[in-house]
Amino acid sequence: ADVKKIAVIAGDGIGPEVVGEALKVLKKTEELFGYQFETEHGLFGGIAIDEKGTPLPEETLEICKRADAVLLGAVGGPKWDNNSKELRPETGLLGIRKALGLFSNIRPATVFDCLKEASTLKPEVLEGTDLIVVRELTGGIYFGEKFRREGAGGEEAVDTCVYNVTEVERIVRQGFEIAQTRRKKLASVDKANVLETSRLWREVVNRLAPEYPDVEVEHVLVDNCAMQLLRRPASFDVIVTENMFGDILSDEAAMLTGSIGMLSSASLGEGSFGLYEPVHGSAPDIAGQGISNPIATILSVALMFRLTFGYAEAAQSIEDAVKAVLDAGHRTGDIAVDKSKAIGTEAMGDLIIAAM
Amino acid sequence: ADVKKIAVIAGDGIGPEVVGEALKVLKKTEELFGYQFETEHGLFGGIAIDEKGTPLPEETLEICKRADAVLLGAVGGPKWDNNSKELRPETGLLGIRKALGLFSNIRPATVFDCLKEASTLKPEVLEGTDLIVVRELTGGIYFGEKFRREGAGGEEAVDTCVYNVTEVERIVRQGFEIAQTRRKKLASVDKANVLETSRLWREVVNRLAPEYPDVEVEHVLVDNCAMQLLRRPASFDVIVTENMFGDILSDEAAMLTGSIGMLSSASLGEGSFGLYEPVHGSAPDIAGQGISNPIATILSVALMFRLTFGYAEAAQSIEDAVKAVLDAGHRTGDIAVDKSKAIGTEAMGDLIIAAM
Ligand SMILES: CC(C)[C@H](C(=O)O)[C@@H](O)C(=O)O
Ligand SMILES: CC(C)[C@H](C(=O)O)[C@@H](O)C(=O)O
Repeated sequence: ADVKKIAVIAGDGIGPEVVGEALKVLKKTEELFGYQFETEHGLFGGIAIDEKGTPLPEETLEICKRADAVLLGAVGGPKWDNNSKELRPETGLLGIRKALGLFSNIRPATVFDCLKEASTLKPEVLEGTDLIVVRELTGGIYFGEKFRREGAGGEEAVDTCVYNVTEVERIVRQGFEIAQTRRKKLASVDKANVLETSRLWREVVNRLAPEYPDVEVEHVLVDNCAMQLLRRPASFDVIVTENMFGDILSDEAAMLTGSIGMLSSASLGEGSFGLYEPVHGSAPDIAGQGISNPIATILSVALMFRLTFGYAEAAQSIEDAVKAVLDAGHRTGDIAVDKSKAIGTEAMGDLIIAAM
Repeated sequence: ADVKKIAVIAGDGIGPEVVGEALKVLKKTEELFGYQFETEHGLFGGIAIDEKGTPLPEETLEICKRADAVLLGAVGGPKWDNNSKELRPETGLLGIRKALGLFSNIRPATVFDCLKEASTLKPEVLEGTDLIVVRELTGGIYFGEKFRREGAGGEEAVDTCVYNVTEVERIVRQGFEIAQTRRKKLASVDKANVLETSRLWREVVNRLAPEYPDVEVEHVLVDNCAMQLLRRPASFDVIVTENMFGDILSDEAAMLTGSIGMLSSASLGEGSFGLYEPVHGSAPDIAGQGISNPIATILSVALMFRLTFGYAEAAQSIEDAVKAVLDAGHRTGDIAVDKSKAIGTEAMGDLIIAAM
């Protein structure tokens, strides 16, 4: 049988709880669909700092490298916030992206009907919003040279933003390809009126566009995009952009859906390998209480099924089960209107499994 | 008498029309308050490219330098969008900021009661929103070295983001000082978990904070800020941030007020000198039709009165007049619910003058 290897990185805060429920869902798909999964667990983030003295132990990286996909919970927390750079969970996050070559971050901003009211946007503005931000994840100012030096104005800090055509081309192509499977609209976001990297970016987009004649391309300046996401969110289909802009815009887009606690994400490299994680953070304030919402992590498994394994049927069954449970009125505390009726993490996981 | 010199740069698109109405207001304040203004007009932006072969002619810069303040309409338009870098209106904008040392951009995000409905945010979320973005304007990735080179991955583009402590200190101090005149809350926005310039920024904020013990400081990561502006806009008072983040966040903040066509801005240097302009652009699509909204430019004059001249009474009279005209139901097309009742640029200017 075709055994799929999944590296499981529970991480910090609510990470272990939500990943626990996702693993139950994974197990259920073995029963229902005859799949076989082999999981291997790795330490990562704050817990790895505590136990191994580094946020990304070599061993964890090895586990990921021999896997077909990675399921990540969440990392970070106040405990490690004042650590030096090498001993911070984020450094592990940047390190794993680079080490695994995960150059593309896919962030669907989906509006869940039952959560529409949770958005701060007017329902009529949100109506029809269904967009994906495709963010470049291993280049730009995140990974360029950084240093301090003495200058005329005293101590000086420097960050370098670098992109080469190869890096831009592969992420832009991914934007075009995803747009082709959807409403065929690509918004390429840059700051070409100021940045050289953006001018290179725009040249590449314009050069590739004729290869995707069915896709309508729009160049949007990043400041304008931050506005248009508020004004006409439903008009966007696929947004492709560089690392820093993508960080900001994908969070803005997620928040405007009102569904941020429910959103999954994928970070992809060449081939079918991918790392899957919920968009929300490690929520240390509610960790260990069994009240966190496992849905975003469970939906990350569905995304893994679609994008890495090609298990579309099982992915659909997970997504349908989530929808059915929500439609039946079940809510964890974060999305409950009546908090007194909120159910816990495990109860939510069990209901979803039962509905599959 | 104390004659104030104002450099007037009408610019492109609707720039000349809206500046024309602002000048009428200026004149009216001479009558009402006995002020004396001397205006000198300069070419800038697209029109300067057409007539002088450069977006920022030396002569215009001289006019600005001998003035006490600059009133700017708007620059840019599709006509110049595909020009080479040196022949683009934005290059003039960046050039004038640098040449005049305008390191601080002040962008109030004000909600006009009568326009509340125009926001895409729910009224209850917007309730109480009144914030100012203080954006660093002459440093960071906008002005660092930019170039192309050949690398292993083909052609490569590089932008450099540089900040020294002096630059950070002066803008951060301005943030603290403005907060002291308001609700005494300062949100310093950075990406200190990734960028060296942000870590320097945060160090400076933490070092200066004890000098402003009455101001409550919050460090917010830029991605989180993009979210929190949507979730809890009313909780922000003053946001201080670097150039690129400020570009994105000030536009996001402006858009969420629903009043973007009505917002003014100031760009300040050392001392009282400042450049004042509406937040909206040159709107080439409606230029020359006499239907543009002059209110943002008129309010920019009020801001000039407050921040450069210390003419608080006259500033108030302009702001009150604008409010009275809006309360009486007069609207230009951009803010009219019933477009058939919209009035033109000049009519709006005349009504405001009459109400002063
Ligand atoms: C934690 C941080 C380094 C990270 C990023 O900026 O990429 C996070 O915001 C994200 O989007 O995954
Ligand atoms: C036109 C552009 C260079 C400019 C900027 O990015 O500063 C504009 O967006 C602004 O905010 O004034």
